Amino acid sequence: MDSTNAQGRSAAIISTGDELVQGRTVDTNAAYIAERLAAIGIEVYSVMVVGDYPDRIEWAWRHTLSKADFVISTGGLGPTADDLTTETLAHVAGVGLRPDEREAQRISLYFKSHGRPMPQNNLKQARFPIGAEIIPNRLGTAAGYRLVIPQDKRRPTAIVLPGVPREMKAMLDGEVVPWLAQQTGDGTVFVSRIFQTFGMSESALDEALVGVIDPNEARLSFRASFPQVSVRVMVAGDRTESQRKLDDISQVVRERLGCALIAEGEVTMEEVVGQLLRQKGLSLAAAESCSGGLIGHRITNVPGSSVYYVGGVIAYSNDVKENVLGVSHATLATYGAVSEETAREMAMGVRTLTGADLGVATTGIAGPAGGTPEKPVGTVAIALAGDDLGRTKVQSRLYQLWGTRDWVKILTSQVALDWVRRHALGADPLSSDFGLRGKPRSH
Amino acid sequence: MDSTNAQGRSAAIISTGDELVQGRTVDTNAAYIAERLAAIGIEVYSVMVVGDYPDRIEWAWRHTLSKADFVISTGGLGPTADDLTTETLAHVAGVGLRPDEREAQRISLYFKSHGRPMPQNNLKQARFPIGAEIIPNRLGTAAGYRLVIPQDKRRPTAIVLPGVPREMKAMLDGEVVPWLAQQTGDGTVFVSRIFQTFGMSESALDEALVGVIDPNEARLSFRASFPQVSVRVMVAGDRTESQRKLDDISQVVRERLGCALIAEGEVTMEEVVGQLLRQKGLSLAAAESCSGGLIGHRITNVPGSSVYYVGGVIAYSNDVKENVLGVSHATLATYGAVSEETAREMAMGVRTLTGADLGVATTGIAGPAGGTPEKPVGTVAIALAGDDLGRTKVQSRLYQLWGTRDWVKILTSQVALDWVRRHALGADPLSSDFGLRGKPRSH
Repeated sequence: MDSTNAQGRSAAIISTGDELVQGRTVDTNAAYIAERLAAIGIEVYSVMVVGDYPDRIEWAWRHTLSKADFVISTGGLGPTADDLTTETLAHVAGVGLRPDEREAQRISLYFKSHGRPMPQNNLKQARFPIGAEIIPNRLGTAAGYRLVIPQDKRRPTAIVLPGVPREMKAMLDGEVVPWLAQQTGDGTVFVSRIFQTFGMSESALDEALVGVIDPNEARLSFRASFPQVSVRVMVAGDRTESQRKLDDISQVVRERLGCALIAEGEVTMEEVVGQLLRQKGLSLAAAESCSGGLIGHRITNVPGSSVYYVGGVIAYSNDVKENVLGVSHATLATYGAVSEETAREMAMGVRTLTGADLGVATTGIAGPAGGTPEKPVGTVAIALAGDDLGRTKVQSRLYQLWGTRDWVKILTSQVALDWVRRHALGADPLSSDFGLRGKPRSH
Repeated sequence: MDSTNAQGRSAAIISTGDELVQGRTVDTNAAYIAERLAAIGIEVYSVMVVGDYPDRIEWAWRHTLSKADFVISTGGLGPTADDLTTETLAHVAGVGLRPDEREAQRISLYFKSHGRPMPQNNLKQARFPIGAEIIPNRLGTAAGYRLVIPQDKRRPTAIVLPGVPREMKAMLDGEVVPWLAQQTGDGTVFVSRIFQTFGMSESALDEALVGVIDPNEARLSFRASFPQVSVRVMVAGDRTESQRKLDDISQVVRERLGCALIAEGEVTMEEVVGQLLRQKGLSLAAAESCSGGLIGHRITNVPGSSVYYVGGVIAYSNDVKENVLGVSHATLATYGAVSEETAREMAMGVRTLTGADLGVATTGIAGPAGGTPEKPVGTVAIALAGDDLGRTKVQSRLYQLWGTRDWVKILTSQVALDWVRRHALGADPLSSDFGLRGKPRSH
């Protein structure tokens, strides 16, 4: 879970491809790489994105190599004429190209195993600048490589990877980051750990974590990835000492964050909920109105979710609430579809209908239309039904969420999942107080 | 729907912010700007992303201004000490800063209208390089501006916008693009139109559109945005002539693409389905197994979808398929949960249960586990039930989709929505043949 190692040098990133400078594709590779480098204490100086033109690629390499110790490039390694990274870099480095027999065989096997003939131009992917160390690609044809720029006395290193995110990520995490982490200049090691939180703003987190670190020996950084905020703790020092410090700090972070801490590492809310339900042997069903299926979608994004998620009802219309879930006509007429009362009957109804251990329900106004002065856009009721949920076997609460329609849907699904998480942890689901509206009501 | 105008000059983009080079945020602004510029015939030379350091920002400005006619920058216009774009650009341009009284008043009013006191450092946002033309920001405090770099004899223009995507987009589309489109060097005008398609690969589209354009007077470009592919037609010439040519070409494109054409402009599949259901006065319910709620989520992303979408059942377990949707035990035992037979009973079941005009159903193996030799991962059955769907009032078909779990889910929801779209258009839903497995079976 912890990221280890590295040294205080700087890096630059080059992303190559016409699709990036024409706006046909968003460059997500650069942020992925920058985040991984930050975790091992390497600062990214700049990202340069250029189209598939030799002069522009050359310009990007010359300017980044003059500034950074490591330049990581993605893209331009394909088999076609407009894939120019290798030729251009060899030219910049002042070295020739050599064919690599093993890579040529691997590429030809790759095509054979996929039952397709190999186009001759794919052999281009088996040529490398002289002096390059090959970085294998287990998922595609384009291998990457590392090349020290010989004529620059700072001896910067070019690290060349394919642009396909799946291949790039596997090579970066498997080969490049561990290698970079070993290039320690002075023996300093960086270790870091990520804490996923929900329910606290960045400033609330900042306040909660006051005094946890000594700024001379560790760093805290926040990353808002709606609707969650992650906290990274990074410690620099010698290996044993910094790992011990990180463990000590982590212990304090866990205590300070309490139930707002969802998980450590790159884990989603739906994965945490799934792990907890599995551990406790609980099954879940959802009755979704304003979340419109998003809870089911998120839960079923996790492989193996059929073990604990039986399904549910998307009760978008009042008829479905009444006829499928059994919400009483009187409740809908008296309190309205967006009310704790309706949410409770939805949660109980979906639990009865499916026989699941837990039934969670959402009903609210996602907007942009449909709001009233008493129930403005963002008003959302959540309920959870289950045998051990108090005397009436159901709990509910009203929230005032905010933002555009998609935000209200995401927040609704997040709060509902947070209820399930807290309950499965043995905590009170009503303690999920993000965007809470008014006081809890006793039922 | 059509984008108009511009001239054949080049642009560069600078994105400023520590969060971008530390990987805490993906830079989506650059792709948005590049796409808008491409639509008016302006080519982006490079994108540079730098952190909040004056020397790096200066480096980015000097290098881009030396290459491009227009440099568009986002970010670094906030009120705090690490927002350095304006100071740095003024330094690069060799001009001083001046306070702008009207902007100062506007910012102070902005705070007043939000009921908050204005921090004094926000007045920093009312200072501009001397000679800059202000670009108003109606959604936030940071105004943008245009500045011609006086000492460069090419007289490149810096265009400075805030980094908040919502504000940036409004200012770009409302002010910057129309202004750029007027900076025609030779009176040439560019008009373009986007066609959204589903069911054809880029190469199939390329083949279908052979000969539609004369490459001397128009351009076709493709953008894959999984699971759809969009086609942009761009025509250059004088204003009347090029609009007429675009209309002529569009007519041929529509004929060639047929039912694979979902919509023109920036419209999603779920918006098209919604418009059609509204027009026809039809209501829809969904019975989702392997799509896990994603159909409901997508449909309810469209404001006002409660008019035609009543809801549905996420029938993830066999028990829910049987007990809630009324799929017969014999069907599940004989054909399995992933079969046309089960899909048909799910579609009919959800229609009966909810009383909707149409019931659509999905059942399949999203993976990564659960595949068998006969039903590998990606095997998905789709069914649609409705009064006018043939003698048995239901149609079904088996697909072999591919990719990771999330891709299978997205493709399943897309094919299911495409069935509803085709049926609402009066076409045969079985004509949706993307990833079709085997021959259609007669039932």
